[in-house]
Amino acid sequence: MPADPDCIFCKILQGEIPSTRIAETERAIAFMDINPGTAGHALVIPREHSTDLLDIPAEDLHACTDLAREIAARAKDRLGADGVNLLNCCGEDAWQSVFHFHLHVIPRYKDQPDKDDLRLPWVPTPGDMDDIRATGEKLA
Amino acid sequence: MPADPDCIFCKILQGEIPSTRIAETERAIAFMDINPGTAGHALVIPREHSTDLLDIPAEDLHACTDLAREIAARAKDRLGADGVNLLNCCGEDAWQSVFHFHLHVIPRYKDQPDKDDLRLPWVPTPGDMDDIRATGEKLA
Repeated sequence: MPADPDCIFCKILQGEIPSTRIAETERAIAFMDINPGTAGHALVIPREHSTDLLDIPAEDLHACTDLAREIAARAKDRLGADGVNLLNCCGEDAWQSVFHFHLHVIPRYKDQPDKDDLRLPWVPTPGDMDDIRATGEKLA
Repeated sequence: MPADPDCIFCKILQGEIPSTRIAETERAIAFMDINPGTAGHALVIPREHSTDLLDIPAEDLHACTDLAREIAARAKDRLGADGVNLLNCCGEDAWQSVFHFHLHVIPRYKDQPDKDDLRLPWVPTPGDMDDIRATGEKLA
């Protein structure tokens, strides 16, 4: 798909908007998030414009996943991260704010509240098993 | 890799621990999370045991990503989800609690606080651009 002239990430890809690019492959690039959750928070996007997880071709999805994994490994090796989260937001109601598919790569730091005050998005609590099974039947 | 006898997800794969399985492919399966963040929260795992994102072979990573995308599409079509989040936790310090690679597929529901009280793990705030560039240089 040609670049979307209204897409901020397409503009970053084309160099019209500056970014701190940290890696690139044939189908994907990685650059630093300017609103970082933790030190080293990066974004991985496909070179070709896709709106979201449901729109992106498998080949680009795999390329982004592979590059995100590579950045995760670098975060552990080079930044001393203790762990890494990957997050994808698909849809405005799932916190997506730029409609060009992206994976967040978020390094995590143990016992360093100055670098890492992330909180799990939900409180893990046992669900009602009847509800879970009924919902599972709809998804199966 | 053979099944890890101490791994709860290997036991789910082998049917030793019950689960609500909702999909399976040659390399991956999906089942319902019993501590759901929202209605329809599912997990996608590879059939072969891998510890985490840094350990899983690319073929299994791609298979899990593809199946997670399929479950995301079903959540929108069949559960009326308005969006979906994918989350991977790599390492104990990134909230990983079962050390068999898994992707969380978390349907999101607009304006339904009874079904969806998830919160973004961080507060997006502009970072210091010098810090961001310096960290980016380490990752590049």
